[in-house]
Amino acid sequence: MTAAAIAPADTEALRERLSHLDTAALSDAMDSLRTPPFVLPGIATRTPGTVACGPAFTVRYRAIDDETAFHNAANYIDDVPAGSVVVVDNGGSRTCTNWGSLLSSVARHRGISGTVVHGSVRDVQESRTAGYPLFSTDVTMVSGKNRVVLDRTGVEVDVAGTPVAPGDWIMADDNGALRIPAALVAEVVRRAEAVERTESRIRRAALGGGRLDEARARFGYARPWEEGGEDDHR
Amino acid sequence: MTAAAIAPADTEALRERLSHLDTAALSDAMDSLRTPPFVLPGIATRTPGTVACGPAFTVRYRAIDDETAFHNAANYIDDVPAGSVVVVDNGGSRTCTNWGSLLSSVARHRGISGTVVHGSVRDVQESRTAGYPLFSTDVTMVSGKNRVVLDRTGVEVDVAGTPVAPGDWIMADDNGALRIPAALVAEVVRRAEAVERTESRIRRAALGGGRLDEARARFGYARPWEEGGEDDHR
Amino acid sequence: MTAAAIAPADTEALRERLSHLDTAALSDAMDSLRTPPFVLPGIATRTPGTVACGPAFTVRYRAIDDETAFHNAANYIDDVPAGSVVVVDNGGSRTCTNWGSLLSSVARHRGISGTVVHGSVRDVQESRTAGYPLFSTDVTMVSGKNRVVLDRTGVEVDVAGTPVAPGDWIMADDNGALRIPAALVAEVVRRAEAVERTESRIRRAALGGGRLDEARARFGYARPWEEGGEDDHR
Repeated sequence: MTAAAIAPADTEALRERLSHLDTAALSDAMDSLRTPPFVLPGIATRTPGTVACGPAFTVRYRAIDDETAFHNAANYIDDVPAGSVVVVDNGGSRTCTNWGSLLSSVARHRGISGTVVHGSVRDVQESRTAGYPLFSTDVTMVSGKNRVVLDRTGVEVDVAGTPVAPGDWIMADDNGALRIPAALVAEVVRRAEAVERTESRIRRAALGGGRLDEARARFGYARPWEEGGEDDHR
Repeated sequence: MTAAAIAPADTEALRERLSHLDTAALSDAMDSLRTPPFVLPGIATRTPGTVACGPAFTVRYRAIDDETAFHNAANYIDDVPAGSVVVVDNGGSRTCTNWGSLLSSVARHRGISGTVVHGSVRDVQESRTAGYPLFSTDVTMVSGKNRVVLDRTGVEVDVAGTPVAPGDWIMADDNGALRIPAALVAEVVRRAEAVERTESRIRRAALGGGRLDEARARFGYARPWEEGGEDDHR
Repeated sequence: MTAAAIAPADTEALRERLSHLDTAALSDAMDSLRTPPFVLPGIATRTPGTVACGPAFTVRYRAIDDETAFHNAANYIDDVPAGSVVVVDNGGSRTCTNWGSLLSSVARHRGISGTVVHGSVRDVQESRTAGYPLFSTDVTMVSGKNRVVLDRTGVEVDVAGTPVAPGDWIMADDNGALRIPAALVAEVVRRAEAVERTESRIRRAALGGGRLDEARARFGYARPWEEGGEDDHR
């Protein structure tokens, strides 16, 4: 199932609901569905406090094999739909970058939700100042130009062992980044919202003077996506 | 020697004095006593600018061996004394977490000083906003629920090779985390305070126009815990 | 070629121009000259948003071989010329430090531009508060005193495989740290300034409504140090 299988209006509604969630609640919802691995390992925020969420636009780089030939820049950003999360696979490189301040500026201008790089980025401070959500394996200053070259866009990529297909949903925040198969995203969001409501009840009860263990038992902490606690009377 | 061996009033007085020190001065004081290794390796702040100090309340997790059984949450937080530092040993895991925003909220509400996790935490931004001192090996978003289970509390745990016994004192700040055996904490604090005074004198002299090497020689930089410099006339 | 080969007035003028650039533009300029490796691998900022640039003053430590002898502090800071970047090689140690708040205070007071440590530093928060540019492999709190000892200053050091000679130029910012051979620094700065101008033109065109790929083609993104675009009429 690809992103195309979700109608644009539904995509926008999902993105709005996702923007009120976080990777922790979504991770718990994925766990409850016993999905395959969903974490994008080793991806960390470079712009703390920002969130990226939306369908993945995938970009794969490869090492250049002919060092004497000229290799142009990777020109794909003009084709990325607004609301997407750009997922760049550069094999986890810590020695050259595939993203910098110019791309952050243009991406923000185009309404792209954020970028996840399996590899390195540069100009982190400019992206932070601009408030553009940027996530990566590492940071360095060396350009990828004449070191790697665009291989393909719109193909399945691999982020440290977790596959990301075009149209998979991505969410990234200060906890890291995860992907949600498009076929599951509606149910995952529904469950994550229930997780958040259960946690809010537990938090209120525990901060109101009760014991945390009792609040957890009362409000169904073991299966929070079911909201199965005793006062579940909505 | 355990925390119980220090009277509660003395504990509070020590915590007050510790709160004016930092891990650098304490580390120098420990060095002067030629103590066994005291650093908790690989532990980094997740809430820059915050400090945790107090006797350790230890918590050990283990991997679950029966994946089909139900495993409840680890309910220990209601039993942690105010002023403690929770030290959680999850074997340095980078793949699942043992701490999140709900625990930070409850811990803060209960007057717990902070938390050190040999493993991963989530909801870092919420802990940062709440000002709860949180330290860990790594950050991810995946819950430990149904992955690991509470083994024991109040036992000696191992943080990357450094043992932490219940009642050992812990101090953690932006430099990292260390432990001080309970039997040594009074002397370590006394020496660390002397180190701080010696460094202040050197700093004032060097910033007042002198050479740093001369200020160091004059104020006993080689053995700063002795405050043995020429103007040591208190 | 050493720093001494550049007249003081030229050094100050170069530092002024460098202070308006960043490691990304300098890296692109170095790439265009096909220089040997210039990145100082694994060096990260400990004071985000600050920049160090200037000729290197190198400091090499070695492990102590006689643990019973007394080893004094490394007293070199009084000899570092204003405007220098101190480059400390402690073999990339993650277990003991060679820099702390006292040195940051004195270095700032003396007009030293910043410090790059191939190894660990402590008192990161104080350096951040003081706005002193500090870069290192890692952070811990353990002093190097009686663990390592000053070997030599003013010699070529090795930062994770990249040599730094006294008088090489160093620039460090949030992207990392690099060195520029003294013989190349004038040309590297000239090219980096051209890179910045080319990028500004591309950025303006792309944010003004055009496509990024067209802006890149128009303004000579492939060889930005030549400013070879069609409107290159200065």
